[in-house]
Amino acid sequence: MDTALRQEIFEYATKWIYEAGASIRDQIDDHYQIDTKSNANDLVTEVDRSTEQYFAQQIRHTYPDHKIVGEEGYGDKVENLDGTIWIIDPIDGTMNFVHQKRNFAISIGIFFEGVGEIGLIYNVMEDVLYSAKRGEGAFKNDQQLPSLNEKVTLETSIIAMNSSLACKNQRINEEKVQQLVLDSRGARSYGSAALEFAFVAEGIIDAYLTMRLAPWDFAAGMILVEEVGGVTMQANQQPVNLLEKNTILTCNNQITERLFSDYIELK
Amino acid sequence: MDTALRQEIFEYATKWIYEAGASIRDQIDDHYQIDTKSNANDLVTEVDRSTEQYFAQQIRHTYPDHKIVGEEGYGDKVENLDGTIWIIDPIDGTMNFVHQKRNFAISIGIFFEGVGEIGLIYNVMEDVLYSAKRGEGAFKNDQQLPSLNEKVTLETSIIAMNSSLACKNQRINEEKVQQLVLDSRGARSYGSAALEFAFVAEGIIDAYLTMRLAPWDFAAGMILVEEVGGVTMQANQQPVNLLEKNTILTCNNQITERLFSDYIELK
Repeated sequence: MDTALRQEIFEYATKWIYEAGASIRDQIDDHYQIDTKSNANDLVTEVDRSTEQYFAQQIRHTYPDHKIVGEEGYGDKVENLDGTIWIIDPIDGTMNFVHQKRNFAISIGIFFEGVGEIGLIYNVMEDVLYSAKRGEGAFKNDQQLPSLNEKVTLETSIIAMNSSLACKNQRINEEKVQQLVLDSRGARSYGSAALEFAFVAEGIIDAYLTMRLAPWDFAAGMILVEEVGGVTMQANQQPVNLLEKNTILTCNNQITERLFSDYIELK
Repeated sequence: MDTALRQEIFEYATKWIYEAGASIRDQIDDHYQIDTKSNANDLVTEVDRSTEQYFAQQIRHTYPDHKIVGEEGYGDKVENLDGTIWIIDPIDGTMNFVHQKRNFAISIGIFFEGVGEIGLIYNVMEDVLYSAKRGEGAFKNDQQLPSLNEKVTLETSIIAMNSSLACKNQRINEEKVQQLVLDSRGARSYGSAALEFAFVAEGIIDAYLTMRLAPWDFAAGMILVEEVGGVTMQANQQPVNLLEKNTILTCNNQITERLFSDYIELK
């Protein structure tokens, strides 16, 4: 992607994220409508929809040839990675949004010919923007994030994951996950995949493991994590697929081998 | 406890917490010494010790007849609940302090003749003080916290706990805990008992369950939670004991009965 164009897109995307975030903060105490999607705990609100619609309108107006993949359906039917694609989650962590009124994020990843160029994760209530351009490092607001700690070991790692991975399930050997909880320094669960990616990039957690994420949940995060030397892949060690749901491991690369040799065994 | 005296103690305690917090923020990027206590993941730092020492000095100077129970050993040998007792955790969530440089708290509970009179939990890096005086409500900074939501059900609850409770263990039936993870709206884990109590009081999580807490981990929190109508007890439904380690459930009382009837079974 042309550097000047990328910079222009970055500036527009940042501007729109701040505007959308301000609008969400204005609405946070309103009585918005809450629906459920595939199951009772997969919530969606009017705010998710209106926020995605806002981004779709801005992008289509400014870059009519760009494609949009969005969680709430205001995007395009995208079947390949040609050209420029915006992959958007208007509110990542909707359960936190509804129940906590914080700990959620806007996530936007921008890809050109399948390569991640721009990643933006905005912690709306804390007004903290994590951002990255490929090859230019990752930032938390104006502060560049350092490369991930090379001295981390599995035993001194904090691992983020949903507790359900340690429960009987169809996807992953729960006994090995239980051993991971015990062998690592600690487990955490925050309820927003985008923020969990941002926390890996920031080095405050060392891995995030999950059995089912859509592209809008990880598109921005994988770009951020790569810029600090971390890695993102499917939990079967294959590269992620931007066109479908994936199992995901994102982590400090110091512990990748141990995670796969001792703890991650898919069913 | 005399109301005027309690107000005076509250004002001193608040002043000292803000001062200690400012000092911790000043030291957060220093290279302080980290030791381990009972096991490799039970960390303690110079900052834990110097912060507790600071509180002990202030209290002994101002209230020489008060007793102090502190995590780091600068308190008194307290064998009964007579008189006024300060129960102090200088840094609750030391692993977060070391690894994340945020998500930890100073916790101070003040009891008179065994009754909780003042609870203070200070989220140091966010500069947010949760405070309560018995019978006068709980506050987040200057904002009074509303009573806990009476419409919460188990199925719409967010439960905080360490993932290790869902793992094979000696203390609690892990299969029932796994069912709780699946039946509730979601599980979270933040790594600071004091903050998890504060989040229950704030209503952003609905329960916090843990198998082993010392008095300094829950003393302030149980006072806060009571002021918004929540409850705190041992996981065998007995009242907590302020003189020893306890299993702990603190929650919105709407879900107490379901938690005990269907999910919490000690071994």
